[in-house]
Amino acid sequence: MVSGPSGVGKDTLIKMLLKTTDGIYRSISATTRSPRPGEVDGSDYYFLSKEQFEQDILGGKFLEYAQYGPNYYGTPQEAVETRCLTGEDVLLEIEVQGAQEIKRKLPHAILVFLLPPSIEELERRLRNRGTDSEERILDRLSIAKKEIELVRLYDYKVVNSDINKAADELRCIVQAERLRVVN
Amino acid sequence: MVSGPSGVGKDTLIKMLLKTTDGIYRSISATTRSPRPGEVDGSDYYFLSKEQFEQDILGGKFLEYAQYGPNYYGTPQEAVETRCLTGEDVLLEIEVQGAQEIKRKLPHAILVFLLPPSIEELERRLRNRGTDSEERILDRLSIAKKEIELVRLYDYKVVNSDINKAADELRCIVQAERLRVVN
Repeated sequence: MVSGPSGVGKDTLIKMLLKTTDGIYRSISATTRSPRPGEVDGSDYYFLSKEQFEQDILGGKFLEYAQYGPNYYGTPQEAVETRCLTGEDVLLEIEVQGAQEIKRKLPHAILVFLLPPSIEELERRLRNRGTDSEERILDRLSIAKKEIELVRLYDYKVVNSDINKAADELRCIVQAERLRVVN
Repeated sequence: MVSGPSGVGKDTLIKMLLKTTDGIYRSISATTRSPRPGEVDGSDYYFLSKEQFEQDILGGKFLEYAQYGPNYYGTPQEAVETRCLTGEDVLLEIEVQGAQEIKRKLPHAILVFLLPPSIEELERRLRNRGTDSEERILDRLSIAKKEIELVRLYDYKVVNSDINKAADELRCIVQAERLRVVN
């Protein structure tokens, strides 16, 4: 599981990891929010209606789910468990609460937190993206500060100052975990 | 700490690790055996007299020591502890018993076992080295079989079938351990 504040470079690093490392299945989240331009159902997200999502909650079909504003987000359980059983590694990009919930259900799961070099640098990156309003940026920074304090709940931390170094470190974590002696 | 049977490629892999990874101090063992041609005191080993070695044992100067045939081998404590205190990583090439003894004294130490692809391949490599008598080769193979059973006492295992892959895996273990969240 990979967590980290908005703007830290999660998407880029995960794409680099999937390119360099075989045998990883990236879990696709379900959501009730509308697809953004270019987003594909079943590839970026499973886009569900609110009714369907709530039915799936009641059916126990999520490893974890959460509500942000008016929308649900969740991790479908079946796909993750099927891949684990076939010996594949499953990668989840997930926020801090969801990561903890899954760790309780799947104690052998490994948690990696991606950190910005500093809050100032994170702010600079969020502004450079140019996708968020001033209010949204301040909101994201405030969430980031709280999340970063929770790095102690994680197994590994990777500081993304140099993208290639951070990508190598993320790959090394996966490699090393695969080499662990399991008794 | 790196262990593995004779002929598995420990020396080569450790040299490759030290080339690709900064901040590792390779511990130099002490021994009472005579230097072989080309071996340098203080670089390959600390070559000590039997009297000096036994005095150092009594003085508590070894993290671990063992006797093989007529000779002592040991890990000097001070050099290891000094480097640990300055935040450097210390690399020990060490046999199974010694590794366990040090793990008891330094519980945060990480143990890596290097495995041959198979016993048959190990035998082929030992014969190809051409340095050992037939008796010595059979002796080494018999020790190897016993050692390999003890891989369960280790944190990580690396199979050396492809030297570059194994070197990358060893490097990844060091990298990943450096990224661990310590609470």
